[in-house]
Amino acid sequence: MDSDKVLTLAKRRGFLWPSSEIYGGIAGFYDYGPLGSTMKRNIEDIWRRYYVLGEGFAEISSTMISPEEVFVASGHVKEFLDFLVECTKCGEVFRADHMVRDFEPNADALSAGELAAIIDRENVVCLRCKGTLSSPKPFNLMFELGIGAGLKGGRKGYLRPETAQGIFTNFGLLYRHFREKMPFGVVQIGRGFRNEISPRQGVIRLRELNMAEAELFIKSEDDSWPKYQELSGEKLTLVPNEGEMVSISLGEAVEKGIIKKQVLGYFVALTQKFLVDVGVDPEKLRFRQHLKDEMAHYAADCWDAEAKTSFGWVELVGVADRTCYDLQGHIDHSKQDLRAFERYEEATEVEKKKVIVKPEVLGPKFKKDAGKIKMALEGMNPEDLAGKDSVTVNVDGKNFEVEKDCFVLDTVKEKISGERYVPNVIEPSYGIDRIFYTVLEHAYHEEDDYVTLRLDSRIAPISVGVFPLMAKSELIDKAKPIDDKLRSKGIMTYYDESGSIGRRYARMDEVGTPFCITVDYDTLKDDGVTIRDRDTKEQARVKITEILEVLGRLLEGKVALVDLAI
Amino acid sequence: MDSDKVLTLAKRRGFLWPSSEIYGGIAGFYDYGPLGSTMKRNIEDIWRRYYVLGEGFAEISSTMISPEEVFVASGHVKEFLDFLVECTKCGEVFRADHMVRDFEPNADALSAGELAAIIDRENVVCLRCKGTLSSPKPFNLMFELGIGAGLKGGRKGYLRPETAQGIFTNFGLLYRHFREKMPFGVVQIGRGFRNEISPRQGVIRLRELNMAEAELFIKSEDDSWPKYQELSGEKLTLVPNEGEMVSISLGEAVEKGIIKKQVLGYFVALTQKFLVDVGVDPEKLRFRQHLKDEMAHYAADCWDAEAKTSFGWVELVGVADRTCYDLQGHIDHSKQDLRAFERYEEATEVEKKKVIVKPEVLGPKFKKDAGKIKMALEGMNPEDLAGKDSVTVNVDGKNFEVEKDCFVLDTVKEKISGERYVPNVIEPSYGIDRIFYTVLEHAYHEEDDYVTLRLDSRIAPISVGVFPLMAKSELIDKAKPIDDKLRSKGIMTYYDESGSIGRRYARMDEVGTPFCITVDYDTLKDDGVTIRDRDTKEQARVKITEILEVLGRLLEGKVALVDLAI
Repeated sequence: MDSDKVLTLAKRRGFLWPSSEIYGGIAGFYDYGPLGSTMKRNIEDIWRRYYVLGEGFAEISSTMISPEEVFVASGHVKEFLDFLVECTKCGEVFRADHMVRDFEPNADALSAGELAAIIDRENVVCLRCKGTLSSPKPFNLMFELGIGAGLKGGRKGYLRPETAQGIFTNFGLLYRHFREKMPFGVVQIGRGFRNEISPRQGVIRLRELNMAEAELFIKSEDDSWPKYQELSGEKLTLVPNEGEMVSISLGEAVEKGIIKKQVLGYFVALTQKFLVDVGVDPEKLRFRQHLKDEMAHYAADCWDAEAKTSFGWVELVGVADRTCYDLQGHIDHSKQDLRAFERYEEATEVEKKKVIVKPEVLGPKFKKDAGKIKMALEGMNPEDLAGKDSVTVNVDGKNFEVEKDCFVLDTVKEKISGERYVPNVIEPSYGIDRIFYTVLEHAYHEEDDYVTLRLDSRIAPISVGVFPLMAKSELIDKAKPIDDKLRSKGIMTYYDESGSIGRRYARMDEVGTPFCITVDYDTLKDDGVTIRDRDTKEQARVKITEILEVLGRLLEGKVALVDLAI
Repeated sequence: MDSDKVLTLAKRRGFLWPSSEIYGGIAGFYDYGPLGSTMKRNIEDIWRRYYVLGEGFAEISSTMISPEEVFVASGHVKEFLDFLVECTKCGEVFRADHMVRDFEPNADALSAGELAAIIDRENVVCLRCKGTLSSPKPFNLMFELGIGAGLKGGRKGYLRPETAQGIFTNFGLLYRHFREKMPFGVVQIGRGFRNEISPRQGVIRLRELNMAEAELFIKSEDDSWPKYQELSGEKLTLVPNEGEMVSISLGEAVEKGIIKKQVLGYFVALTQKFLVDVGVDPEKLRFRQHLKDEMAHYAADCWDAEAKTSFGWVELVGVADRTCYDLQGHIDHSKQDLRAFERYEEATEVEKKKVIVKPEVLGPKFKKDAGKIKMALEGMNPEDLAGKDSVTVNVDGKNFEVEKDCFVLDTVKEKISGERYVPNVIEPSYGIDRIFYTVLEHAYHEEDDYVTLRLDSRIAPISVGVFPLMAKSELIDKAKPIDDKLRSKGIMTYYDESGSIGRRYARMDEVGTPFCITVDYDTLKDDGVTIRDRDTKEQARVKITEILEVLGRLLEGKVALVDLAI
């Protein structure tokens, strides 16, 4: 398979267009044309069926711009960096790790010093003019901007590099939305922005991405998952970060400790189901565990869904264990309580040591200071007072020496109804653009120069072509109302009356339209039309009055056209 | 009606949340919570039914970041400005026109000098500390950012202030997508960004907006519209920029010249149909024509759909005649041919004057320069040569005096099969956030402290509440499968088993859920459930096996629950 062929078709037929092409284009930016935009939305809608309707996750839509504080707390200001090198002669810019990957397979884990050493040692030079390269400098991959105006130049903000932070900052509101019941999940579908240093891989490395992310909040120690059994039989191809590649069921993988947590494994298997459902070839799909030094700054474990394409193995989805990293970061920076509360089945009593002050001794000794000293003593850790003859108490900047006859240490019983904890996060994060491209490439079939996109009927941007056999008014008068009827029912059609019927079929096959309806001269007699299947080229005769019902079943894949043939 | 009540409900129940609230929030940014995000998407889906399925417009999805060139060509770099004034004492920033609107109703059309004069004359001071204000300075409302890295600091880009430019820059590709047939329309739904100086109107003036825009490309001189008759009877409330407010049909408004073009009028009427369809109160809706000096830099005419809300009359939609302003701008700056071609019914012959050089005279006179002089002469406008005794021809920086015996002016016939033209654009541009808020406010009903959101069933974020009468396993075992079944069919449900049934109904009424299904003890005998209507509180008994079919008709509004009651 050749990516040029796919991208040429994608451009010619309105799937993907290089953005701002009339101004020479700009690396890392693609527009979705009429067919692409519809197909992308179809993929997102199926994703929504999995996560929102299927798993019961809530969907939110947060802003793409957030103030600096959010990304300081999330660690992105400090950690979301790549190293760049510049040619000292021509000024061309490169990612430092890409320049040394022939010498170091895991180059993106290297420090600036390590990168510099390899560049120096291997005499790596500018790819364009062979000039000397500068030393590697860190470059933050977020787009920075100023919000508002004024003497102070506005407030600093960033375009989000992932949709996830909009979920984390709203954790408190979401927790209340779920009426404080754990676990719960929240999704977001939308753009993310990454100011890649010099993206050279077309549609695979974008600066403006379409993402679909799910954040599942769970109790920290709890690795189980109620729906786990439903998918434990799912067969997976796994590439663990230690040991060999294996083909194995989810259940076995968890049992053998290859995948550490049931819950992480469940979403790995769910990801596979989704990807295959929208059209990724299961024979070209694997899950690779990140190497320890490859992980994002927030992740403790991560499995990538990778698809084999003409660009090599491409990461489509990351299923990460983000631990409580993000929520803890936002707690620390915002000083808000972003914890969940777990009520015990029944309240328990715990024994607790306590400082009990004797006012009848303390009062006479310290007079007007006694009240404050009492409060200070009661606030101290009883363990620190145990066994001491006296203790120094600081009140309003003044030290008082308090002897042990002023207090006793006692054990009291306290009732505890539950505990607060910072939830852990499991995150399946989907790169919609890469999934989109992979689905196109895996659907691309060519035989004797005849191209068919074998897209699933729920993904195809056009569901039905509607044609009068010839551009004659008696046929058009029958075909047009069929087209109108289908569109009014929300079915995307393409009406076409120009050129030979063969050429019209070919135009539809090339963009993956699963079915075509043709009105011919028999229609005028029997009120029947021909429905044609894209892949088998089979045809069936259906009454006009039954088209909607038949198409409904065909488009859902519930029946094959061949079973309708008379 | 009180916006505080609506916004309090919207926040409490997860419709709208101030963005980044844990960091103190940031003016002009709102997040859509779980219910809001779903309701917003429902509104967008209905919009899509109008424009994509109904009008046959294509949908695209272009990038939000574009390089500077795009917005130089569109005029936004030069024209998309507001004037700001700063307090010289406390540094607070204000929009200059907002500071003088008590003295000048049409303040946003004033120049910096005029604004300064009024501030001076009326002694306008800082709203916060009464300090002296600076002189007004222009402030561009686009968010600027740097794309990529490097010695040169990357390439300058902007976040789009409207989605429209992504359509205009792709005009050539779109024109080919429509197989060069005019007219055609293209839509885009997505974010736009406007760096408002100091937005103080909450959800009404946002810095990050959700927009739905349609760009209709038509022949410049053609004001007619094929579907015009379908809506010419639609009654409109119009506030023209000259004369009185009138309530009048579209047909009459166009006849009387109040709305200048059929095609503009059609989209005004379509806008009204859409707004009323999603829930804007038709009694609180009017169309106001922009004043001549109020128009955006690209518009020749514009009618705003305005809704009456607790914020006053709020612009929801602008239906603008953008002329060929944008395409011409992109032609001039990109040097690309963004014109349409109109083929004549039959090719016509036109007579054309032409310069015919006589080589037998020219040759001997100018020798080696004769060839170049001939080309220059032939490129000249024949009109400029008529009646002259000689003409000066400049070749390679050298002037030659050519006498009239060297050429003749002749009339030749030329075949012309059609003509190229720069299309005009009619743009209905919808502010989704404001429509969303208005729909919420107009749906808000309160009686004796009981709140019901009377949302249309196609807009409501939750379609059906599913309840077991009590949290008993025999009822739960009947209710859960109903919930699962509905969700698997794409119907958004809310399953709830906690608290009294009355409280559960109230929770659903408050968020506009049109129907609730209750499983009770009779269900165990008769396999029937109760369906309850939000607004009438009527109940009907329906068999479990018939729920899907009945709900389908109820949710589409095809049947009222009262007609189902036994």
